[in-house]
Amino acid sequence: MKIAVVGYGGVGAAFIKLLKDQKEYINKEGIKIQVNYILNSRGGVYNPHGIDCEDVVNSFEKDITFNTIIKNKDVDLVVEVTPTNKETGQPGMTHIAKALENGMHVVTANKGPILLNYKGLNELAVKNNVELCIGCTTGGALPSINGGIMDLAGSNILSIEGVLNGTTNFILNEMEANGVDYSQALKKAQELGIAETNPTLDVEGWDTASKLLILTNVLMNQEKTLKDMNVEGITKITPEEIKDCIGENKKYKLVGKTTNENGNVKMSVKLEKLSKDHPLYNVDGKNKGVRYTSDPLGDLTIIGGASGVTPAAASILRDLINIHRGYKFSR
Amino acid sequence: MKIAVVGYGGVGAAFIKLLKDQKEYINKEGIKIQVNYILNSRGGVYNPHGIDCEDVVNSFEKDITFNTIIKNKDVDLVVEVTPTNKETGQPGMTHIAKALENGMHVVTANKGPILLNYKGLNELAVKNNVELCIGCTTGGALPSINGGIMDLAGSNILSIEGVLNGTTNFILNEMEANGVDYSQALKKAQELGIAETNPTLDVEGWDTASKLLILTNVLMNQEKTLKDMNVEGITKITPEEIKDCIGENKKYKLVGKTTNENGNVKMSVKLEKLSKDHPLYNVDGKNKGVRYTSDPLGDLTIIGGASGVTPAAASILRDLINIHRGYKFSR
Repeated sequence: MKIAVVGYGGVGAAFIKLLKDQKEYINKEGIKIQVNYILNSRGGVYNPHGIDCEDVVNSFEKDITFNTIIKNKDVDLVVEVTPTNKETGQPGMTHIAKALENGMHVVTANKGPILLNYKGLNELAVKNNVELCIGCTTGGALPSINGGIMDLAGSNILSIEGVLNGTTNFILNEMEANGVDYSQALKKAQELGIAETNPTLDVEGWDTASKLLILTNVLMNQEKTLKDMNVEGITKITPEEIKDCIGENKKYKLVGKTTNENGNVKMSVKLEKLSKDHPLYNVDGKNKGVRYTSDPLGDLTIIGGASGVTPAAASILRDLINIHRGYKFSR
Repeated sequence: MKIAVVGYGGVGAAFIKLLKDQKEYINKEGIKIQVNYILNSRGGVYNPHGIDCEDVVNSFEKDITFNTIIKNKDVDLVVEVTPTNKETGQPGMTHIAKALENGMHVVTANKGPILLNYKGLNELAVKNNVELCIGCTTGGALPSINGGIMDLAGSNILSIEGVLNGTTNFILNEMEANGVDYSQALKKAQELGIAETNPTLDVEGWDTASKLLILTNVLMNQEKTLKDMNVEGITKITPEEIKDCIGENKKYKLVGKTTNENGNVKMSVKLEKLSKDHPLYNVDGKNKGVRYTSDPLGDLTIIGGASGVTPAAASILRDLINIHRGYKFSR
């Protein structure tokens, strides 16, 4: 399988490293993965016989671009991991569309294009008889898309409920464990590199909302947008509320939830008190979890997906391998 | 897709009913499922143009047998749901082998043949370029096999830990909730139809052991037998031990566990005290759960799979649909 890696930030670099670390697994699987392109915003490296990935950093040439891939048409699959843009989806949107149109599979970690136009891109994939895999966009290593598509194949998904954001989860745990207030917990998360300097997307609930929206559109065949969702974050929570919640033997979690009642689809993101017997009660720290109710396979809860570039890269490798094993994601 | 349903007990009948109940889903998926055979131990029904499944009970003819299927070779897939025999694997063993040899996919809920010779049967599947799907053998609706194969594709599974038996789980919950002793809890489980009249396989741990063995052999590419496993049941647990465990804020669970440390594979089934932060702590009642540790995708916990013939039938439909979507399980 000849591939192009488009985007060479944290996840792209971790993916290239993973191809080496998981070489034994990949060989046993019977796949020969040959990296023909590595691109970033400044240019790229190209070798039609496969790049020596040990030493690429100094080999980027500015005239090797995404257009080179489309012109040469010498890869089977494009790994699209450029920075996400949730307003325009660019440059990922163009990369994904062009790759699919030219008969290349796409595996992406890029939420922007998927949020904005999953349906259209999926149709392009179907039309061109290739796969568009987006497992990494809804919780990295957490197999939330797999869970909904493969593990619930044959069942109708009635609801989706997820603790999908590690940063807010960490902050809430910190407040529970140490009785600190929100701003102190946020500061610790920032010091540990868990929260970003500008944490708005996480703490205001928009990261959770984005993931929930993708899950809803993909798994329930909807065409919703973020505007259709009620989104609340965690910034107003007080140490007193946390203390009271502990007193009730419960935990606060930022929960994204979609229900589908006879076609009436409702989505929300808000703080909820989960009791000990709730399947997502134990999703702590940087972990993530999703719970589906379905008919007739019943309840399914999936917990995992620690944050980080390596698990994210492993999620991309998972999609690539499942494509190689013949799975038709795009329908 | 033309299919034969071999075995017409609870699961077989539920599967036939499910094909009708999930007709809309199946049509949307673009599969045309035509049931050419329904067999039980007394004979069968056959129609090369598809059986009218509404009214089969009185149509069984004793000269329609499994050999008819092999002679006619007019199905793509065999659903093998005859009663399990863990000593000889028969008649399932012969059914599965012959179907695979004759180029038919097999989806089975039958633990016996898979326990005794998964490796050989899988090799037959590979050789004949068909799929052998066994999702239902390790927890019915719980996607434990899917989880290990599809959701952890590209990762090495380091350990498997499962609460895989609903009956023992129910008995332990009953003892926790009502302070009754083991025999009283068992009696209630039997009255509710959760435990069988002869509960030995469940309460002595052998059902859990069988499921763990299948998961271990399939997901870790082993050829172990039940003799390689330390198996303890729940029959000796006392109300005092349960009470002490609750006092420690923990729950007893019958846990099957496999660890693989640099190729040294160890398996056991025994009662364990799980603390609140253990991912399987919340697997209560008839539910089941499995937890994998893996590298590099990390921890993955899957909870679900309520007992019953309909969820079991839904698990078979899931495998059938995933085969139709092109997945290569057998490698």
